[in-house]
Amino acid sequence: MKKLLNKTENIVEEMIQGIVKTNPNVERVPGYNVVINKHFDRSKVALISGGGSGHEPAHMGYVGNGMLSGAVAGEVFTSPTPDQVEAAINALDSKAGTLLIIKNYTGDKLNFEIAQQLAQAEGKEVETVLVNDDVAVENSTWTIGRRGIAGTVYVHKIAGALAQKGGSLSEVKAVAQKVIDNVRSFGISLNSIYIPTTGKKSFELAEKEIEFGLGIHGEPGIKRENIKSSKEIVQEMIDIILKDYDYSNSEVALMINGLGGTPEMELFIVANDAHNYLAEKGIKVYTSNVGNFMTSLEMQGISISLLKLDSQLKELLMEKNEVKAWK
Amino acid sequence: MKKLLNKTENIVEEMIQGIVKTNPNVERVPGYNVVINKHFDRSKVALISGGGSGHEPAHMGYVGNGMLSGAVAGEVFTSPTPDQVEAAINALDSKAGTLLIIKNYTGDKLNFEIAQQLAQAEGKEVETVLVNDDVAVENSTWTIGRRGIAGTVYVHKIAGALAQKGGSLSEVKAVAQKVIDNVRSFGISLNSIYIPTTGKKSFELAEKEIEFGLGIHGEPGIKRENIKSSKEIVQEMIDIILKDYDYSNSEVALMINGLGGTPEMELFIVANDAHNYLAEKGIKVYTSNVGNFMTSLEMQGISISLLKLDSQLKELLMEKNEVKAWK
Repeated sequence: MKKLLNKTENIVEEMIQGIVKTNPNVERVPGYNVVINKHFDRSKVALISGGGSGHEPAHMGYVGNGMLSGAVAGEVFTSPTPDQVEAAINALDSKAGTLLIIKNYTGDKLNFEIAQQLAQAEGKEVETVLVNDDVAVENSTWTIGRRGIAGTVYVHKIAGALAQKGGSLSEVKAVAQKVIDNVRSFGISLNSIYIPTTGKKSFELAEKEIEFGLGIHGEPGIKRENIKSSKEIVQEMIDIILKDYDYSNSEVALMINGLGGTPEMELFIVANDAHNYLAEKGIKVYTSNVGNFMTSLEMQGISISLLKLDSQLKELLMEKNEVKAWK
Repeated sequence: MKKLLNKTENIVEEMIQGIVKTNPNVERVPGYNVVINKHFDRSKVALISGGGSGHEPAHMGYVGNGMLSGAVAGEVFTSPTPDQVEAAINALDSKAGTLLIIKNYTGDKLNFEIAQQLAQAEGKEVETVLVNDDVAVENSTWTIGRRGIAGTVYVHKIAGALAQKGGSLSEVKAVAQKVIDNVRSFGISLNSIYIPTTGKKSFELAEKEIEFGLGIHGEPGIKRENIKSSKEIVQEMIDIILKDYDYSNSEVALMINGLGGTPEMELFIVANDAHNYLAEKGIKVYTSNVGNFMTSLEMQGISISLLKLDSQLKELLMEKNEVKAWK
């Protein structure tokens, strides 16, 4: 394993120090693995997300006006504890209430919901939504129900835009749920990754093999095959998504998400294939997002997300924001 | 070699199609591997850059108001031909003149300068600047003189901001040259890459080895060593830069550039170490840029760039722009 690290036990601590030193829009909650929007307006709904580390820029990269108010980082591929989430709620201390955006993993769901209960016990208004956009598997080693992956970033963007415009907690929660109901994702991986804390590979793939439906922690997908052309892979991925949800005659947002180690050149080749195939299927791409939005350390591979849009989602998706990792 | 590609001979073509389909701010010059800013104002100085492909987001990702007016893509790691560069000059057709920002590689310099001469012969006002920020080697397999690497992006940003504000060709060229005079970079690599057109690795590194001073095409650096801590590596990199140029008592912009396959987590750990070490040295970081700015396909590794700032450079660097790849 070759990685740019100091002590493995300090990875998350040093990463957060690096984030805070290089992003003038965020500040750390002292003593916690939590960063918040330095310019957060307490009269607005607070949006908090988080999860295990290793998925950067998710989630700390999305903190800023127009997206998340705060983000909580667990250790690598490990849920943050409830006290960390509670610290984020308390530090933001919104008068309009707090929405926790949880990716559906057993640990995340448990710990964010405990934090919700602790905060509610202190009289705070805290709601949750659960993102489960990954159509690959119904249950997994890390999940009961579907996993939350890159489609989560659309929840951050759209709910964040409404919160910024002064939406109420119930309005912000409703639009977050609308995104969740209308977004589906599917991922493939070309290689394994080294888990920095153990120095071991998370799984093994043969020289020409790729895995369909792999999770962002390297948890198993649905099948392995020898690599094919981008066009064939993209069509198969989109077919799996379209089988799960009816996008016919829709306008969609298309996210081509790199898993951390994929050259941007390949993301654009994939994006081209995805645009062409969606056009064949009569599905109109209203806007596209291409880049590393939710990664798995240095994994080479991609996920594709489709979000069915209506006029409200379109407007909120296109609102400007002050977040470096959104593009 | 596992990559998300269709035919290797179509890589650049399909990448450009993907870029144009997903970025509403750019359009393609028909028949050429050139994209230009769709909203370019012909009364302003045109800024054109480019080079071989495989370094994305450089350079097409920087096209838009406030940075480049146009970008030209050669084949993978291959200079664009003069007719491609000339097509960019002609398509933009600026009434205020054109500045070509050339990274110092033998092929790029030759081909951009031929394009300049062709355009001048038609009565167009075209100037050039040559970026040679890499302090690693004086000459290389690809270069006479120092190579141009990630520091080039600061030239795009700062000259682009002045062009956007209506600076004249001589003013824009002067500020581009000021950036070049005040920026230094140094890179290291943790692994090799597969060249998609040949299917072969560009070089070999042993299991624990890293290479100091490696170029963005995999061309040789100055030494190989076993991997050390991020802190030790960063200090050694910065020492090499400081030995070349006096940044003492300065304010600088710091770029931590990922080479394509480096997890963002590691970029922030490196950024933290760089901030700490610069503080020890009495060098004040005015602003930082962390991300994949100029890559080498899926290479794991980083470059560090330091740009000494004055009040003009500070102001232009912080101007807003409409470019997705800048952050």
